[in-house]
Amino acid sequence: MDRAIGVIDSGVGGLTVVQELMRQLPKEKLIYLGDTARCPYGSRPAEEVKLFTWEMVRFLLNKNIKMLVVACNTATAFTLKELQQSLDIPVVGVIQPGARAAIKCTNNNHVGVIGTEGTIRSSAYTNALEKINADIHVYGLACPLLAPMVENGILAGMEAKSVVEESISPLKQNKDMDTLILGCTHYPLLKDTIQEVIGNNVTIISSSEETARETSTILDVHGLLNSKTDEPIHQFYTTGELNIFIEITRKIFKDSNFSKLEIKRASLRTNQEV
Amino acid sequence: MDRAIGVIDSGVGGLTVVQELMRQLPKEKLIYLGDTARCPYGSRPAEEVKLFTWEMVRFLLNKNIKMLVVACNTATAFTLKELQQSLDIPVVGVIQPGARAAIKCTNNNHVGVIGTEGTIRSSAYTNALEKINADIHVYGLACPLLAPMVENGILAGMEAKSVVEESISPLKQNKDMDTLILGCTHYPLLKDTIQEVIGNNVTIISSSEETARETSTILDVHGLLNSKTDEPIHQFYTTGELNIFIEITRKIFKDSNFSKLEIKRASLRTNQEV
Repeated sequence: MDRAIGVIDSGVGGLTVVQELMRQLPKEKLIYLGDTARCPYGSRPAEEVKLFTWEMVRFLLNKNIKMLVVACNTATAFTLKELQQSLDIPVVGVIQPGARAAIKCTNNNHVGVIGTEGTIRSSAYTNALEKINADIHVYGLACPLLAPMVENGILAGMEAKSVVEESISPLKQNKDMDTLILGCTHYPLLKDTIQEVIGNNVTIISSSEETARETSTILDVHGLLNSKTDEPIHQFYTTGELNIFIEITRKIFKDSNFSKLEIKRASLRTNQEV
Repeated sequence: MDRAIGVIDSGVGGLTVVQELMRQLPKEKLIYLGDTARCPYGSRPAEEVKLFTWEMVRFLLNKNIKMLVVACNTATAFTLKELQQSLDIPVVGVIQPGARAAIKCTNNNHVGVIGTEGTIRSSAYTNALEKINADIHVYGLACPLLAPMVENGILAGMEAKSVVEESISPLKQNKDMDTLILGCTHYPLLKDTIQEVIGNNVTIISSSEETARETSTILDVHGLLNSKTDEPIHQFYTTGELNIFIEITRKIFKDSNFSKLEIKRASLRTNQEV
């Protein structure tokens, strides 16, 4: 079973999921597609997000993937159900794994979620949490500046800290919340800063780590784990500017992992590498 | 979908999995069967463990369960594959979830496992870990005294501490190990003592918590989550002495949860409640 796992995202945020997949499933081959040309998805209408997501999915289905990871919270919120019903391979999103990890982690059922406007407006985390536990209290907060900041490569320093502080300060007044879900795959790149601002009494759940963990579970349940031990080479595609994408990817991955990547441009209009 | 989740164990250890299932999946109805009459399984030959496990499974299949949780490491080691191939409902064991959580958690790929003689001898954890990551170092240690101690209701105090200390001391010399899997469902009841003995630099993974988490994932993936919100009443069965089983159950569960349980004796010979 040496077919690849396909991973899609609106831009570079999904690379935090890929990073965890490489760590937790080192035998698996990955094909990543980031729609950086049209990023961010967070403030776009639902119909547009669906259209763009399906274009990405078709590109990866052409590559004969064995499983699809929707590594974008906005795309998960608007398309996961449809994709799970339409495709004959397992599909996992980033919302349910984060929700389940929060339920496992919280001691008092008071859970916060930060994400894009689209993700928070969709109530996708609230629905996922309440589907499992009706007694859970969810505090959602849209943080529209954080993902664009990461897309611009600002991951630490004074500017990052003051933007994080301003973005999440409404949640700091909530003394009950003991668990906070990073409901956007860009945010793990700001995790240390977010932890510093929110304080050590709140456990932070990274959807990216949890999604990698559940990808492992689902591959195992479906008998799809790769049994070969050769080190895989991963294919990364961007719809946008290749040099900027390579720069950000280099910033996120360690050298030892960066050397395992082949990075190219993709056209979703022609469904081809370009 | 208001069919129950079936949970089997050799005795009372699986109650730690049930406790987590009740916490993480409060809408789900559970049917638990503990083979306390023939506990422990840990030192029995493989063929006998298989025979006993199948007897328990048949008892629960008669109750029309929608999913089976093998909440016993020894039974998982010897029968999981066979059960997954034979039954037409999803089957989860306690070994793979613990292994995946350890892989997510470790920073240096040095992982310890403590369990019964049978579990350690079977190398089930080593196989599960290496199936996913070939570069992992696994240190297995059989602790034959711990499960019988818990079955006798000794969960804390001087005696518990000195038995734990003596049992796990060989692992304390290993300075690389950063993660320790509790590879027996009895051990979460000794978690605080084990943490105290092994030190705070080692993260302890409870197979019970992780199995509940993956049960949630698998129910969701199969569309089997219960959508009703009524508080379920759970059925617990023991093959052994009813009063002792009730006493230990009362010790493990808080009053608010204990009131949600109906506890009865079961005969595996006749496949009936008695």
